[in-house]
Amino acid sequence: MLNPYDHEDAEPLMASVQQMLPHLRRLIDSADSRDLEIVYVNDNYGDWSAGRSELVARALDGKAPHLVEPIVPAEDLPFVVKARHSIFYQTLLDYMLRQDGVDRIMLAGQVTEQCILYSALDGYVRHFSVILSRDCVAHIDEEFADAALRMMQRNMHAEVASTVEEALELL
Amino acid sequence: MLNPYDHEDAEPLMASVQQMLPHLRRLIDSADSRDLEIVYVNDNYGDWSAGRSELVARALDGKAPHLVEPIVPAEDLPFVVKARHSIFYQTLLDYMLRQDGVDRIMLAGQVTEQCILYSALDGYVRHFSVILSRDCVAHIDEEFADAALRMMQRNMHAEVASTVEEALELL
Amino acid sequence: MLNPYDHEDAEPLMASVQQMLPHLRRLIDSADSRDLEIVYVNDNYGDWSAGRSELVARALDGKAPHLVEPIVPAEDLPFVVKARHSIFYQTLLDYMLRQDGVDRIMLAGQVTEQCILYSALDGYVRHFSVILSRDCVAHIDEEFADAALRMMQRNMHAEVASTVEEALELL
Amino acid sequence: MLNPYDHEDAEPLMASVQQMLPHLRRLIDSADSRDLEIVYVNDNYGDWSAGRSELVARALDGKAPHLVEPIVPAEDLPFVVKARHSIFYQTLLDYMLRQDGVDRIMLAGQVTEQCILYSALDGYVRHFSVILSRDCVAHIDEEFADAALRMMQRNMHAEVASTVEEALELL
Repeated sequence: MLNPYDHEDAEPLMASVQQMLPHLRRLIDSADSRDLEIVYVNDNYGDWSAGRSELVARALDGKAPHLVEPIVPAEDLPFVVKARHSIFYQTLLDYMLRQDGVDRIMLAGQVTEQCILYSALDGYVRHFSVILSRDCVAHIDEEFADAALRMMQRNMHAEVASTVEEALELL
Repeated sequence: MLNPYDHEDAEPLMASVQQMLPHLRRLIDSADSRDLEIVYVNDNYGDWSAGRSELVARALDGKAPHLVEPIVPAEDLPFVVKARHSIFYQTLLDYMLRQDGVDRIMLAGQVTEQCILYSALDGYVRHFSVILSRDCVAHIDEEFADAALRMMQRNMHAEVASTVEEALELL
Repeated sequence: MLNPYDHEDAEPLMASVQQMLPHLRRLIDSADSRDLEIVYVNDNYGDWSAGRSELVARALDGKAPHLVEPIVPAEDLPFVVKARHSIFYQTLLDYMLRQDGVDRIMLAGQVTEQCILYSALDGYVRHFSVILSRDCVAHIDEEFADAALRMMQRNMHAEVASTVEEALELL
Repeated sequence: MLNPYDHEDAEPLMASVQQMLPHLRRLIDSADSRDLEIVYVNDNYGDWSAGRSELVARALDGKAPHLVEPIVPAEDLPFVVKARHSIFYQTLLDYMLRQDGVDRIMLAGQVTEQCILYSALDGYVRHFSVILSRDCVAHIDEEFADAALRMMQRNMHAEVASTVEEALELL
């Protein structure tokens, strides 16, 4: 989500993020009152020296700072750098979740039919139960996103809620 | 190497680091004139929110800032956060090295008979050729360190040089 | 593909496999005359003691031996046991392919919108280029299979041929 | 342990295995009366087509069938093929152990200062507690084996028993 939006297909993604952003913010805000730990997992866009501060700065300096500002991560939140699409591929996330005794994860962010789908799969393969809320994921291609969500439900046994509130009930 | 030195066995390690530090610094300084890319891989000590800036600050704020200052990483150097001993376990290092076409790695830092040994092994298993210099690794237990270096040589086919200069010839 | 077909949704899968089987057999037969190495990767269905002979026997003893017989693996072909959907998850396939200098893989078998999709993704994330032929993959759900193939093309840069012959030209 | 003993350094290893074999057999025999699951993890020596039956046949056909016969695995025991030294590297062992709810593992076999050491490390990194018995591991180099066992104890918190019986008490 810390995205400078300078990639191909950024336009349709930005439109989708715009709609989703208040819901994602509401999800983050409800973490304190729920037994919910927020973890940011962000692409480093091939810059091996980049961590949270660099990625935040670059996203705020990009084409859509208004899509970044509302969700800049608090400094004390876990922050995991990923090199590829899945949040699990060559990251310490799996180790961290097991250490913290987590077996249910809710995926939020972008892109529904890409990183979200791939991460849902990698979570399913590792026996995490996966929850999503339709209003907390953003897509590039609506048709693919819809198919992806249905595949996650049917084939990866993900629970797909319509709203943040409904998703929180599932936790 | 970005270590607050507040752990068990920190005393003997600090003594060893003190000796090794100028050699490690010389290694870092020679990178520019050689075809050598420096990569920091540092433990996050269980703090999932910590990246380079936090880990540097904490180490400088620890028991031995004089052992940290000389090797504070430049901002543009690759920096990888690890959760466990091996530099390869659930990190993007393997991916990064392959992307950059690297097949020879030189390990430097601490602790010879622990993280260095384990990382040498994980490098060997992945078919990286591994180089070390005795003056660029620090130990807690001298006898174990010596056995570890000989195991790396004999069983993991690592090349072990005596000095930075000799190691650079091997690259 | 060594499937006893005793699982949920086996019926539609069997119908799809029936159609695809002669094409898959043709692909296997053309390996010798092409620079093509056939590798079987098969689920162990949770039986940790099962290898090739057990999995072949069990499939031949299942509900559709006629869908198994034509593709029983020759004894000298690589055979990899997997525990989960992706051919890469906790298997030695990645290591084997790199050792053999392979960077292009063609996926064939079942199920297009599940194991094939997930394996295509894991191949893409690891920078293998991925090829498929529509006549060499079998599905359970036609709509999902179609979406999966289009996602592989667009988002994972897979090359999707219509026939074995066309796919072989891409190798 | 299903070893044709045709590799370098096979001589000293065979001598060590000879001594250890009755104890290893006793360990296997006690599994039924204890809550102990035996799992074979064996190298495929670069033959990607080899599973249990091939590896057993090849070992029985090697230089020391008398060191293989007493420990030929029963057909219903889990059997995992590995490509490299560690039992965890690109194998499904980690997945299998977690699925079976196992968090304590006892390592037995060969070579103490190589595969056993590396597997102990990979177990430790994954938070399995590791047990060994000195009479159930075989070495090539006695000095290295001794150092390896002490490193496992001190740095990987492995419990090292002197005899099978003592080890079984630790389970």
